[in-house]
Amino acid sequence: MLTNRRKVRIVWGDCDPQGIVYYPRYFEIFDQSTTELFELALGMTKYDFLKAYDFVGYPMVDTRAKFSIPNRFGDDIVVETAVTEFRRSSFDIHHRLLKDGKLSVEGFETRIWVGRDPQDPSKMKSAAIPQKVRDLFNAKQPND
Amino acid sequence: MLTNRRKVRIVWGDCDPQGIVYYPRYFEIFDQSTTELFELALGMTKYDFLKAYDFVGYPMVDTRAKFSIPNRFGDDIVVETAVTEFRRSSFDIHHRLLKDGKLSVEGFETRIWVGRDPQDPSKMKSAAIPQKVRDLFNAKQPND
Amino acid sequence: MLTNRRKVRIVWGDCDPQGIVYYPRYFEIFDQSTTELFELALGMTKYDFLKAYDFVGYPMVDTRAKFSIPNRFGDDIVVETAVTEFRRSSFDIHHRLLKDGKLSVEGFETRIWVGRDPQDPSKMKSAAIPQKVRDLFNAKQPND
Amino acid sequence: MLTNRRKVRIVWGDCDPQGIVYYPRYFEIFDQSTTELFELALGMTKYDFLKAYDFVGYPMVDTRAKFSIPNRFGDDIVVETAVTEFRRSSFDIHHRLLKDGKLSVEGFETRIWVGRDPQDPSKMKSAAIPQKVRDLFNAKQPND
Repeated sequence: MLTNRRKVRIVWGDCDPQGIVYYPRYFEIFDQSTTELFELALGMTKYDFLKAYDFVGYPMVDTRAKFSIPNRFGDDIVVETAVTEFRRSSFDIHHRLLKDGKLSVEGFETRIWVGRDPQDPSKMKSAAIPQKVRDLFNAKQPND
Repeated sequence: MLTNRRKVRIVWGDCDPQGIVYYPRYFEIFDQSTTELFELALGMTKYDFLKAYDFVGYPMVDTRAKFSIPNRFGDDIVVETAVTEFRRSSFDIHHRLLKDGKLSVEGFETRIWVGRDPQDPSKMKSAAIPQKVRDLFNAKQPND
Repeated sequence: MLTNRRKVRIVWGDCDPQGIVYYPRYFEIFDQSTTELFELALGMTKYDFLKAYDFVGYPMVDTRAKFSIPNRFGDDIVVETAVTEFRRSSFDIHHRLLKDGKLSVEGFETRIWVGRDPQDPSKMKSAAIPQKVRDLFNAKQPND
Repeated sequence: MLTNRRKVRIVWGDCDPQGIVYYPRYFEIFDQSTTELFELALGMTKYDFLKAYDFVGYPMVDTRAKFSIPNRFGDDIVVETAVTEFRRSSFDIHHRLLKDGKLSVEGFETRIWVGRDPQDPSKMKSAAIPQKVRDLFNAKQPND
């Protein structure tokens, strides 16, 4: 399935008094990696795909991270992100954060596809993931 | 005029590899201090006062901070916040961040009062600050 | 075992364009909750206990969070934090984030106790959790 | 003088419930832009140049930002950063944040060059900016 691969430079403001990444920052990196995966699959920015597919977002219901190798400012890492499963209205994401090719941090996410509640537009309600979204993720990659 | 005074504990996640507050965090502290000043004056949370006064917010147009004494995790500081001037649709805020009674950081803000554009509700437009808001800020404080 | 209970006001800067907490912020709340639990147990600030017990910190090796009820700015939540298990040099933490008494977010952490490597002080190495730390956590609480 | 020019994608996690950048995030963008300017001039990462020039950092003493055009997630901006003046142990930085070639946010910084206090290595003390640093900033750019 489609994998997004992006480079991230760890910066001063990501790091704590130990000089290594303050771990909540990894979840910011993962969230943006999920966004970039969807942008790659759907061919438009998040701002645009929320409108194009008329939904509110994909809030997190369960996330986990495992930390093996610490990173400090100046380090260049690579984040590989892929959907591991689509269900009716929820899906799983796997992130692999690599430094010098070695697994440094791993992230796991379960998110739900959410739209406006037709009964009450001020509320959110889970919705079926559109077939077109599934198809775009399943399409062959250029370098397959 | 009304002054809000609040205690803040500097925490690990506020600090950088030098062990002192990463300076963008002071603007987060100041922004929340402005919110608490309005909450004190208007007697309700920001969530509620945005609805009660039917406006979108008070975005920043100009802000400045001066740094005299660094702070590190575990430090307890006090932030004193007051409006220094109300104009038709903009206002100035002054923050004094004190450690052990000494001025550590000072913040200055100019913000504008913003509502929905009546011609196009998807856009924002500056609006006159309601007289009731001015009155509530000018009211005598309990300990005047 | 000792439980720390603290109130947190969700603020504007915690929230994303959906108006709810941007989920990486919960890990900042949890990290500070762990700090406050140690501060309660050890009777001093983190700045002081890192020195008193001569260690570098308790970096995360594995963390998970489950999200049930979203929170928005203006919400007041309570975070209950306790150690669920101490092992030789690692320990588990459980956070329960409650809104109006209902479980909103749950957090799980496994951290390791880390000191300077005696062979190379520029490096970190896991170390045994001091018996005094265990004892202070196991002490009866005032309201037991 | 040397100017660093970098592209930044505004992301979901930078934005507040109004859907625009939460303004403290601009200071994170500016801080990293200053880092990248020094990295360009000195030809190494911040991690390496702190060691190579044996100093602790360049903490902020005074900073200001002016906001003209708001930015939202999905926007691509360009940040142009240059030193406007070097003094003995302090210097001024100017940032211009552009969207579609128009000035969106401007940042101004005064920072000091800081080393370890030779009397007490646990303390910081301002120091003269090395001549080599000044020379590298004044060197002609490849595209001058």
